Amino acid sequence: MELTLTTEEVASIVEPVARRGSTGGVVKGIASLDQAQPGDLSFLGNPKYKTQVPESRASILLLPEDYAGEPRSGQLHLVVRSPSAALAKVCARLEQRLWPRPEPGIHPSAVVSPEAQIAPSASVGPLCVVESGARIGERVQLQAQVFVGRAARIGDDCWLMAGVTVAAECTLGRRVRLHPGVVVGADGFGYQFVSGRHEKVPQVGTVILEDDVEVGANSTLDRARFSRTVVGEGTKIDNLVQVAHNVTIGKHCILCAQVGVSGSSVLEDYVILGGQVGVSGHIRIGKGAQAGGQTGIESHIPAGARVQGTLALPYMLERRIQVLRKRLPELFKRVDALEKTSATGDSGQDPASHE
Amino acid sequence: MELTLTTEEVASIVEPVARRGSTGGVVKGIASLDQAQPGDLSFLGNPKYKTQVPESRASILLLPEDYAGEPRSGQLHLVVRSPSAALAKVCARLEQRLWPRPEPGIHPSAVVSPEAQIAPSASVGPLCVVESGARIGERVQLQAQVFVGRAARIGDDCWLMAGVTVAAECTLGRRVRLHPGVVVGADGFGYQFVSGRHEKVPQVGTVILEDDVEVGANSTLDRARFSRTVVGEGTKIDNLVQVAHNVTIGKHCILCAQVGVSGSSVLEDYVILGGQVGVSGHIRIGKGAQAGGQTGIESHIPAGARVQGTLALPYMLERRIQVLRKRLPELFKRVDALEKTSATGDSGQDPASHE
Amino acid sequence: MELTLTTEEVASIVEPVARRGSTGGVVKGIASLDQAQPGDLSFLGNPKYKTQVPESRASILLLPEDYAGEPRSGQLHLVVRSPSAALAKVCARLEQRLWPRPEPGIHPSAVVSPEAQIAPSASVGPLCVVESGARIGERVQLQAQVFVGRAARIGDDCWLMAGVTVAAECTLGRRVRLHPGVVVGADGFGYQFVSGRHEKVPQVGTVILEDDVEVGANSTLDRARFSRTVVGEGTKIDNLVQVAHNVTIGKHCILCAQVGVSGSSVLEDYVILGGQVGVSGHIRIGKGAQAGGQTGIESHIPAGARVQGTLALPYMLERRIQVLRKRLPELFKRVDALEKTSATGDSGQDPASHE
Repeated sequence: MELTLTTEEVASIVEPVARRGSTGGVVKGIASLDQAQPGDLSFLGNPKYKTQVPESRASILLLPEDYAGEPRSGQLHLVVRSPSAALAKVCARLEQRLWPRPEPGIHPSAVVSPEAQIAPSASVGPLCVVESGARIGERVQLQAQVFVGRAARIGDDCWLMAGVTVAAECTLGRRVRLHPGVVVGADGFGYQFVSGRHEKVPQVGTVILEDDVEVGANSTLDRARFSRTVVGEGTKIDNLVQVAHNVTIGKHCILCAQVGVSGSSVLEDYVILGGQVGVSGHIRIGKGAQAGGQTGIESHIPAGARVQGTLALPYMLERRIQVLRKRLPELFKRVDALEKTSATGDSGQDPASHE
Repeated sequence: MELTLTTEEVASIVEPVARRGSTGGVVKGIASLDQAQPGDLSFLGNPKYKTQVPESRASILLLPEDYAGEPRSGQLHLVVRSPSAALAKVCARLEQRLWPRPEPGIHPSAVVSPEAQIAPSASVGPLCVVESGARIGERVQLQAQVFVGRAARIGDDCWLMAGVTVAAECTLGRRVRLHPGVVVGADGFGYQFVSGRHEKVPQVGTVILEDDVEVGANSTLDRARFSRTVVGEGTKIDNLVQVAHNVTIGKHCILCAQVGVSGSSVLEDYVILGGQVGVSGHIRIGKGAQAGGQTGIESHIPAGARVQGTLALPYMLERRIQVLRKRLPELFKRVDALEKTSATGDSGQDPASHE
Repeated sequence: MELTLTTEEVASIVEPVARRGSTGGVVKGIASLDQAQPGDLSFLGNPKYKTQVPESRASILLLPEDYAGEPRSGQLHLVVRSPSAALAKVCARLEQRLWPRPEPGIHPSAVVSPEAQIAPSASVGPLCVVESGARIGERVQLQAQVFVGRAARIGDDCWLMAGVTVAAECTLGRRVRLHPGVVVGADGFGYQFVSGRHEKVPQVGTVILEDDVEVGANSTLDRARFSRTVVGEGTKIDNLVQVAHNVTIGKHCILCAQVGVSGSSVLEDYVILGGQVGVSGHIRIGKGAQAGGQTGIESHIPAGARVQGTLALPYMLERRIQVLRKRLPELFKRVDALEKTSATGDSGQDPASHE
């Protein structure tokens, strides 16, 4: 089976106001105007790319009403009110095909404790493990090889992809989506240094992911020392992100790939952290604050601030310093010259660079 | 089943010297004084939070002998010698409940080679794979979906969580704890550039994790090109850390989340690396040296040094430079002004900023 | 079973031109001259280590024809044309032993859709899942606990280690090697901010890994929004690397551990990125460009450039700035002194530091 749509299926999805030309094939992909190949669907979402339309090799093009060109041979133009909105409808249809809903029920190869509660509409895929006391809500999908530990709770409509681990006692709200390899509830990283050795501090808290949280592949969210590590409603976390024990992340935040948030730090609502940002422990980042990629944050950031750099500075200051930093070699030379002038008392000389 | 302790269970664990008030419920969690909800246990570990005690909503409070306040209605005060030590005892008890010891034996869904040696007291959980020649020591727990490759050795009392991979020929000492998704023994990253292509250099060494090593979720420790990648006794590694081939890490080190150590580098004993630190290849970091978060280390670090920054500098120097860096715009203006003065020979003028 | 070679097996592999001494044991490992223990094989690959040969405790030493020393008792010297080439032959043999080819066929514990196509010479290991429409090529090895999603294609001679996930519709070329925990085809990270919430943008494209790509443990390569995320032929990716949606990586590139490449960026052929490098979205990095460890790239890099730092600068400039950066405290003092001189009009005074 391939990801295909016939011409008529596309037309029925986008409901064109006009059609020009025709194409015989099926749509196998979607691509930008310049990268599309025969078999692809493309679209003119931004008028500035209008000149790319005549050269596009796409089999079907979604075009706005004011586009007047003629299709190539074997090409179909579908004229629609909004090409972008029409494309979004096609993508939504493709998404349903990409992820057909599995049948409810427990795959015979899964290992499910008789003391787990599985909603009748849930699907527990092949080779999953669900331990005692776990509760799996309505319409939940555990794709395959998922581990749900003792007394963990998976809310309605959650979707856990292959190889996800949700350890004992952790809780997911509704519609939480975890991509492959996510680990929820590994121990927080806590030790006491005693007699030359690091002795483990027990990590007996839990992790709570609220409704509509999504977490990318192989990210890790650690169990609190005690109490709870919390990710707020609607927050989206990319791949390979580390959320340490006792962290509290607010609602509707964005954490890009490879971000690390150290223990007990607090992100208020609507915080955005770029890729590879590092946040020290016990920091508070105010509502709506944003940090650019690779920023290192080790002190409180006020609400609404935009920061950059290691250590984090206000964005415009960091940008300015990045420019001046490049001019450091020049600055050293200028100070050398000034010192020569000053030493001789002769402001008129032409200072030879001695660097 | 929930993580619960009755009032009397708490009392029997902490052995209070006095009790005040009473509470009917069970303890469902532990929280700080200001975050505790009814049903939580809290404690006054540091006298500076004493004023938070009267407002705390915790059902049970562990308090020192010199605390004189009265409990709220439905609240129990347990007076103990050391609230922190008492809390630690409660956490240790909760840890036992969080991770009840599984029954010894091999789960029927596990795929275990008849040529593997499994100690009778070991527990091989559901859907694990143990290949031929592997040896699993006494009281080892393979939680679920663990992979132990050919001729790998897992020492007594190791604990491998869901989805851990220990590849062929690798060796774990005693009491090693690997969190979900850890990969021990993937190939080192080595290629020769020949005729415009990267040709693989075979990676035929092993990985040795000595006694009492702990490794966090989704961290990776690569197989040596030949010989051994070694992590020394008692070293603790956080989540998403990369340890490359032929690295030697000493005893009792700490590697925080997302650290990367490149090939053949050596960390002597008691080294501490903060989150997201990067270490170049073939570097030696001396005993007890420490690097702050996001530090980039590309040359040898002497024993006991404390470094920071990219590239790593002595900590105090880097701190000073961080301050001066912020003042670069001002410095450029000052040099502009000096040059104007110098050019006119007039030291009395008020230099107009021309930036 | 252990990783062992008898003396005669080593001799038959390296075909020595002469032998001196003898040793009774078997080779259990390979090590450098100074680290070798009895039972190890070592070699003199670089003449500068010649003085280490007499002290080496290795049981077998591969030595060049111009090395004249005598072996220790119980030690065997094998004289060969090229010790390095001889060692490579031994490693290749060890690699075959380390990874014996599994029997073709489907392990009875694997869950394979009847609508999947599995080549007869392929090996589907224990507890793997292969969904409907997936195609598994000739001589493919799925080690164990691998997930291959609906309609994914795995080309001939691919090797997928324990716990790898290849999600629906993704495509691997021939001889692709994926180390444990790799995730191919998780959703790209795309949201629209609507009415205070992040609404998911469907990610319906695929991932294509071309021939001879190798990907390290726990790395993640995301599905395109639409169209394709592509990794070109012969490119090698280390552990814990993030490749975002719609990224295009050329042929024969090297991405070291913990690199992150943001959405829609393009790496042309032969690009090399050091460990922990971050690349912003929609960037083009020209053919053969190289970036040192931890570099932050947020604008286009020309072909052949060598860059370093955050933000990326030409390598030599960044090196120079790294030196000058250390001298910032000194520079501030010098400007202070110049200002004092300028203010007094007295160039002869000895300015007291007032910092």
